[in-house]
Amino acid sequence: MHKVIFDTDPGIDDAMALLFLHKHPQIDLVGVTTVFGNAPIEMTTRNALYLGSAWGIPAPVAEGAGQTFDPSRGGSYWPTAIHGDNGIGNVPIPENIDRVADSRPAFQFIIDTVRAHPGEVTLIAVGRMTNLALALKADPEITKLVRGVIIMGGAFDVNGNVSPAAEANIHGDPEAADVVMTAPWPVVVIGLDVTMQTVMTSGYLADMVAEGGSDIQLLSDISQLYIDFYKTRVGDGMVIHDSCAAVYLVRPDLFETRSGSIRVVCGGIADGQTIQKPDGRGFPPGAWDDLPSQKVAVSVKADEVLAVIRAALVSGRAA
Amino acid sequence: MHKVIFDTDPGIDDAMALLFLHKHPQIDLVGVTTVFGNAPIEMTTRNALYLGSAWGIPAPVAEGAGQTFDPSRGGSYWPTAIHGDNGIGNVPIPENIDRVADSRPAFQFIIDTVRAHPGEVTLIAVGRMTNLALALKADPEITKLVRGVIIMGGAFDVNGNVSPAAEANIHGDPEAADVVMTAPWPVVVIGLDVTMQTVMTSGYLADMVAEGGSDIQLLSDISQLYIDFYKTRVGDGMVIHDSCAAVYLVRPDLFETRSGSIRVVCGGIADGQTIQKPDGRGFPPGAWDDLPSQKVAVSVKADEVLAVIRAALVSGRAA
Repeated sequence: MHKVIFDTDPGIDDAMALLFLHKHPQIDLVGVTTVFGNAPIEMTTRNALYLGSAWGIPAPVAEGAGQTFDPSRGGSYWPTAIHGDNGIGNVPIPENIDRVADSRPAFQFIIDTVRAHPGEVTLIAVGRMTNLALALKADPEITKLVRGVIIMGGAFDVNGNVSPAAEANIHGDPEAADVVMTAPWPVVVIGLDVTMQTVMTSGYLADMVAEGGSDIQLLSDISQLYIDFYKTRVGDGMVIHDSCAAVYLVRPDLFETRSGSIRVVCGGIADGQTIQKPDGRGFPPGAWDDLPSQKVAVSVKADEVLAVIRAALVSGRAA
Repeated sequence: MHKVIFDTDPGIDDAMALLFLHKHPQIDLVGVTTVFGNAPIEMTTRNALYLGSAWGIPAPVAEGAGQTFDPSRGGSYWPTAIHGDNGIGNVPIPENIDRVADSRPAFQFIIDTVRAHPGEVTLIAVGRMTNLALALKADPEITKLVRGVIIMGGAFDVNGNVSPAAEANIHGDPEAADVVMTAPWPVVVIGLDVTMQTVMTSGYLADMVAEGGSDIQLLSDISQLYIDFYKTRVGDGMVIHDSCAAVYLVRPDLFETRSGSIRVVCGGIADGQTIQKPDGRGFPPGAWDDLPSQKVAVSVKADEVLAVIRAALVSGRAA
């Protein structure tokens, strides 16, 4: 069993990944930590609690950062055209949710949980890296205690999505991402290089609803706005960014990775860009030297990723 | 006939491109302008004069910039391991060369020559973009008077060569490159995406020497140090960066290009990185907006590029 803390800003593709982590038989979801990003922090926390309640997910939810690691960066822009005014596709959310958040801030929840299960917990982070950076700052020793870190974010050999240089999760808090990717823990980065190729058509989702019942019906309801947004970008279907990171945990064989140190550009026109120095490439001395070698996904077997998600969501099976 | 001003910092691969431009029957080399880069400006100018003399190239040589467009950037590093202590592979250069440089600085030579032949001159720039930026600053109207600009520089969907982010020509003067690529004239950028795939083996060069005589023998002598440098990078052979830009002039069909505005990162860890916003891709408002669409080479028929060079160098033929 893989113990997982899911750091998330639900968020529509976040919702699918959450349901996947809950339903996959080889994953023990031990906590959900929230971060601002797809919506303000109060909203992403409420959405995590709501989805936890609606889907009967026992994992506690801890609320995380509502601003960037360097607070002087200032305000955020909310991608309501993609994720809706409420962060989960404008589906109605009940006034009262029978869940409350853990009393600890997300970074402390991460530290406590990692320390309670040394060597066992994988952090899957699919929003801004703020909570992870705060946890590293408060307790640097967790780098030796986590099993691994899987990130959805970045764009390496392809354009970004919020600028030609940068992907949204990293662009939303570049300083935090640079801290996380240069820390001495094993990081795998699942970026746009592979997620943009991993598209679930609306028909595929509808088939899953037909086979899978009410949980998937809610997921489908949440996802319609997102599917509409992506119509002009990928044709029919939703880009399942965050689920790719979750699938990597159980099926790393479906991804080809490249090793090398990673830096994040902070400031200037390339703000938030992720750049890897592949291992074995020589350059004059520079900013990528003497840093841990991390993995970046460079190709994906997209059809098989979809099949893994379907098996878990529809029938709770590992595939 | 294509009238060409060759802006260059010879430089070993520069030397091959110079000989190509001189020998190709459809090219009228109307001037050579020098810039610092592969060696200091006094050396690149002397090398251009020497090669002009040794190869009987009638085109005048005008000396250009010896420092960056923004002089506050400060000093340079000379890639002597690649181009030799004298910039052309440590081949002996006579004390006295029977050529002298034009009395005008390169930027003024460019302006005067472009104005003398409105709509006819293509600038092929294979060093730092300093001279072109200075020419644009002194006479912005030349954007309407050149036929086009072909640049060897940059790295778009691949790593750079002086850092994971940046290629040497652009990294050597990022502010100048940003001025040149965002100016309203038609620019084609031939970067590492295609030049690193265009490798002339030492055997291929030796065959050319056997067929072509003393001019190519000198080129081969100059090139041996460079071939040694590239052994650990591409195996046997020389990456003919600058000749790719020259070949594009006469055989654009051998290159696939992508259109879109280009910016150059100035400062920070990605200093000198070239980033294109492909036409048709939507992003939030940003630094790539309202700029001319330029072309970036994304693939190349490398074998055919080599054949075009061989035909010109060996027998003065267009191929």
